[in-house]
This record gives sequence, C-alpha cells and structure tokens, in this order.
Amino acid sequence: MIAAKPRSVAIVGIGSTKIGELWDYSLRDLAVESGVRAVSDAGMSGKEIQAIWGGNMSAGQFLSQEHVAALIVDYVGLSDLHIPATRVEQACASGGAALREAILAVASGYYDIVMAAGIEKMTDVGGETASKILASAADQEWEALMGATFPALYALIAQAHIEEFGTTPEQLAAVAVKNHRNAKDNPHAHFRNVITKEQVLNSPMVSSPLHVLDCSPLSDGSVAVVVTSAEIAKEFTDTPIYVKATAQASDYLSLSDRKELTMFESAVIASRNAYQQAGLEPTDIDVCEVHDCFTIAEIIAIEDLGFFDRGMGGRATEEGETEIGSRIPINPSGGLKASGHPVGATGIKQVYEIVQQLRGEADKRQVNGAEIGMTHNVGGSGATCVVHIFSRTLS
Amino acid sequence: MIAAKPRSVAIVGIGSTKIGELWDYSLRDLAVESGVRAVSDAGMSGKEIQAIWGGNMSAGQFLSQEHVAALIVDYVGLSDLHIPATRVEQACASGGAALREAILAVASGYYDIVMAAGIEKMTDVGGETASKILASAADQEWEALMGATFPALYALIAQAHIEEFGTTPEQLAAVAVKNHRNAKDNPHAHFRNVITKEQVLNSPMVSSPLHVLDCSPLSDGSVAVVVTSAEIAKEFTDTPIYVKATAQASDYLSLSDRKELTMFESAVIASRNAYQQAGLEPTDIDVCEVHDCFTIAEIIAIEDLGFFDRGMGGRATEEGETEIGSRIPINPSGGLKASGHPVGATGIKQVYEIVQQLRGEADKRQVNGAEIGMTHNVGGSGATCVVHIFSRTLS
Repeated sequence: MIAAKPRSVAIVGIGSTKIGELWDYSLRDLAVESGVRAVSDAGMSGKEIQAIWGGNMSAGQFLSQEHVAALIVDYVGLSDLHIPATRVEQACASGGAALREAILAVASGYYDIVMAAGIEKMTDVGGETASKILASAADQEWEALMGATFPALYALIAQAHIEEFGTTPEQLAAVAVKNHRNAKDNPHAHFRNVITKEQVLNSPMVSSPLHVLDCSPLSDGSVAVVVTSAEIAKEFTDTPIYVKATAQASDYLSLSDRKELTMFESAVIASRNAYQQAGLEPTDIDVCEVHDCFTIAEIIAIEDLGFFDRGMGGRATEEGETEIGSRIPINPSGGLKASGHPVGATGIKQVYEIVQQLRGEADKRQVNGAEIGMTHNVGGSGATCVVHIFSRTLS
Repeated sequence: MIAAKPRSVAIVGIGSTKIGELWDYSLRDLAVESGVRAVSDAGMSGKEIQAIWGGNMSAGQFLSQEHVAALIVDYVGLSDLHIPATRVEQACASGGAALREAILAVASGYYDIVMAAGIEKMTDVGGETASKILASAADQEWEALMGATFPALYALIAQAHIEEFGTTPEQLAAVAVKNHRNAKDNPHAHFRNVITKEQVLNSPMVSSPLHVLDCSPLSDGSVAVVVTSAEIAKEFTDTPIYVKATAQASDYLSLSDRKELTMFESAVIASRNAYQQAGLEPTDIDVCEVHDCFTIAEIIAIEDLGFFDRGMGGRATEEGETEIGSRIPINPSGGLKASGHPVGATGIKQVYEIVQQLRGEADKRQVNGAEIGMTHNVGGSGATCVVHIFSRTLS
C-alpha cells in the first residue's frame, strides 16, 4: 500500500486538558493548556515546533469561528515564528486525521518536529443545537434533513446487530459499565462515576435500543501531541513512542448506501492496511482505544479490528474479555463514553492514552507489559475511519 | 527550512467547474464535475486515485454539512475503493492548504497518485448571512463580534496603505480594471465584462476607500488537480507541471496584534521560504496568481512577494506593469475579483490557471514563454498565506 519508503516517526510529548463541561475555558484557553503541556512533556520550550495540525469538527457552527488552526498558533504564542498551522476536519475523526497529516509531514522530510492538536468547545450551545451540529457529519440531504440524528443512526445499526447476531441490551450496557469503571482512574475523564448494568438499562431511552447511558457525552477539551522523526526523538525522551502504521479509509456517507450496517468497511479496511504496514496481526495488539460514541460502536469496532469474530463482540464484552488485565483491554481511558467526546479532540485523546500506556505511565489503568497499542477513530456513522498503531520499539 | 530530501511532485491533471452563481448545482454536483474533469484531463479512469484532500472553508455554516471530504469521495464514485479523504480548512486559503497536504503526502512516499480539490457553495444563503460566515475567518471574539466584516478589515488596511505610501483610489481601481479585462478571456470566470476606472470609482462605497467594484464576489465553484510523484508523472502526460516549492506561514489572527497593516508577514515569510526551496528569485517568476479578495490585497501581495518595492504596488499596477505581456503578469485568470472567489476552492483555482499557463494552454490569456509560475493564497486578513512555485522543468 505504500509507494516509497517514508521516514519513521515518533511521539515525544503529550498534553491534555480536563475533558468535560468546561464553563470557564474558551476555545483558545483549551488550545493553550494542551499545547503548553505537550511541549513541556517533551522537554521543549515550544520554539522547536515547526508546524501545527489542528483537528476540529465544527467551531464554525459551535462558535462562529473558522480558521481555528490560525487561532491555535496565535494563542499558544507562536505567531512571532509564523509557523504554518492547518485545520483538519473529518467529523469525529478530525483528531486522528490531524495526527495523520502531522505524521505524513514529518515522514515527507519537510519537517522534523511538529504538533498535532485536537480541540472542541461544544457546551456553549444548547443540547438540541449541538445535536443538529453533530448531525452535519451525516449526509445532510439524505439523512439529517429527514430528521436523523446520530443516536437515531446508531440505533438503526444496533437494531441490525441485534437482529443479525442476537446481541442483547445487557451486552451493550456492559460496554458502558466497563468504560465508566476504567474512567474512574483517569484524572482527565469527563465522568469518573462507576455505573451498573441496571442503571444503564433503566436510564431514559434516547433511540431504541440506546439508552442515555449508551451514549457518549458532549464534552469540551483539547489534547496535543508532539511528533518528530524517529532519528531525533531520542534527543527529547528516553521513551519515544513510535508510529508503526497510519491508515485511513472512507465509506458511503449515508447509511442507506452501505452494503451492511453491522460492520464499518472503513474500519475493516483501515485496520487491514495498518496491520499490513506494521507487519502485525490483531493478536499482537496489547491495548486499544476504540471509538465508542455509542456502546454498539465499541462492539462493532472490536469485531472490525479483528479482535473478535463478527457478531461476537457483545458476548466477549459481557464475559469481560475487553477489560484491563484480560484478553485485549479496550478503552482503558474510559473511552468516549466515560472519558468524554470533544469531537475534534477525541482522536488525539485516544493517542494520549496509548502513549501513556506504552510508556508505562497509566497508573491504576496500566495494562501490564503493553508494548503495542492501537487507536480507532471514526467520523460520522463510519464514512471515515482512522487507525494508528504505536510501539515502544522502532523495529 | 527542509529537514530531509522529500520526493519531487508534479501536477498531471486539472479540472474546473464554471465559477459563479450556480443555482442549478449542489455542493456534490460541483465536486463531481471538477473531479471527473481533472481525472479525465490526466488520462485516468479515476480508480488510480489513492487519496483525496478537499479544501473547503465553511460548508458547515453555508449548508449544515461538515465531513465534506467524505461527501466528495462518495459523490465522485470512489467509495467502493474506500480511499482516504481529508478536509482541510484554512479560511480562504483552504484550497492552497489542501494542495499542500496532497504534496506532502506524495512527497512522504505514502502515496503516488492523489487528488487535491477545492469546493465552496456560497450562494444558497443571503448576502448578509454570507458576510457573517466569512467573518468567522477573522478573530470572532476580537473582530467579528465587534461588527468587523472583511470589507471593513481590508478597508483599514487600505487606509493605512494610502496614509503610508500615498496609494490612490485610482490605483486600487486599476487592479479591478485589469482583472476584469483578463477574465474576459477566461471561459470559467464569474465576471467576463470589461469595466472602466470610472465605473469602479463611481460604484457604491462598501467601506471607504473600497467600492463594491474593489471587492471580489461570492461565488460557487470547485476545482481539482491530480498530484503524482515526479517519477511517474510522465506516464500520464507529456507536460507535467512540477512543484518547485510549497510554503505556508501564519500571523496573528487579529489585525490589532500585527506589527504592521501594510504588509502581510505571512506572505513575506511564506514566499521567502518558497524562493529558498526553489532556488529562485522574484525576477525568475514569469506569471503569478495572487489573492486579490480586495483590490488593496493585490497591491500588497505584489509587494510582499518581492515583485515591487514596498509602497510601489499601486503605481506599478497603474502603469501597467502587472498586465499580460508586461514585466510580471499578475492574475491572468482575472483573479478573485473577476474570475470569482469560491473561498475554499480559490487556492486550487489559482493553480489551475498557472498549470494552463505553464502548459501553454491559456489561449488569449497566455503569458508567452511562461516557464515558472507562482500562486499566493491568503486566509482571512493574512493570518495564513500559502505560496507555491511551479515549473515546466524538474531541475
């Protein structure tokens, strides 16, 4: 799949804000806090950064602010250096897509040290407005204008999975229960409360079979990472985390055009490409952050990525196979469900967790001996999927 | 400025819609037409395209449609191939920034054949709404919320240029007159009517000293180019146009933070980097498309790019030095002013013109013997500038 041999790339710094309803932060405050923390984590002053890529889904609609990357470079204090800054938007996969551009830029040889940041400020508008804005990631003419919201689209997907594979509401609930339990130990998480299966099943129905506790929240937040060439990564850290694969794939925007509802072809193809780039198999992955915007999305993700056979994701989750310390720990951060879903930042937030895991710095969430990690970041109802594989070692 | 030796890159196909008020085109129609034309121009079927980058400023606000790149890949008929598609937004420099990502991706070795497209559908909303949407490219908190629109911001810049250098309204008008004259021979241009200096000066005042005929229009349109590695470009065309330099720079988002109003540091720095990458001087450029969103912007651009001394851009224009056949032909397409300004597509539209010029296919607009061309694409009031240099020859 790769035309010529690109340069190897590593992550040497990470920074995150708290994720949640951050009433006392503006968009620019968020950018500053994550950016400064990432640079500081890398042991840099900030002046070393040669370019920035910023993932953001919809500051235009949320805040009447486009040109967000220019705002980021300005407010992190780098305008005097006039470095290039570029916003990437790929709906809820904007963060993963921004990281990908940063990786390609370093791999190309044009840059040695760059930053990829994700940012979203969602709670300055009401819930109904936010729902409409998020629906603009779907096909506006064929889905959103007809009244479809994301809970409704994912509910259709869940119904199909239930019909085809016998997946149960209890299995869906098991995703939420696990992710809340993991988020309890994540200091940045939006929700750190432990919940029970009964609480999920008794929470208000949003769109059958999805209860409110099957849904990820609207969150504010920003996360940034510093990306360098593998050759110079060691100048900044003893534990660079290497990028083993960067892959992205598309699918039809509207669900009605898809061949199947119970799998995301974009995820299947992106992960297949990623495994091929890295020379790895699903069984080689020690820890994975997947895009659980709804509980059904995690179940489909762990099937699409090859961790479980099709249709077995619900049962595997219910049986505890995706818990920390079990077969394949999924979303040790708490995932989108519990650690939060600031849409444009989510893809970088996943990388933040995997870097912590591979460095062995994940504290009570630590997956013992994690050497290889993966992130799976979805845009819309699967029209985009970005997959990355990271490793403690280069070779 | 470049860390390691990147692969050389070329453009082998171009396609454009008509630019204008295209009432009978939707966003997706525009994408299809430009994409199919670009692929066809390259002598491809379309299946060769391995990835797409789409420049778009604000389909979210104009049409409630984010995730635009996924929509493009879907509607051009490539969803079955599941190729990655990524939207780039850098306000009115979105097109140039998208091309840049495509170039970096091919330079990196990850891809051999990709497409960069720009697209905007602006005329489905009223003029006042469009003005507010465009203002979201400025600093919302410090400029737009205070009532500043783009004509007002550029009027401040024009007033400063008049004050500092004695630039006259007649010199501003000369930009519009030249660009309309050039657009007469551009079949895709929004406006193909010749105008006089008197018409400009007598047209309604928008924001002093800028009359309505000093301003570029709201346009719909889409333009696409096919980008390949230089090694394989010859498989598709006898006249590949090589990318000699790709550069981008930032500046403070808000005018109030800038050191100067009468130059854009982003343009000065991006062009300096571009000249350095290409090993060229301003006198080596045979033809240039600059970002004349307002007439004053062209005058500042030709100074920033080093074609004329600071403060001399107005006089040079009035004396005809930027006309086709003169010292340095600027905007043979008609520029933003007359060939139109579909904001997210404009940066690629400029490249379309330069490729035609360097191929010798610009018909009555042809700059004789053009070997080296440049594009200058500005975001907002100069917080972003993207500069590319192209050549008929690789070495």
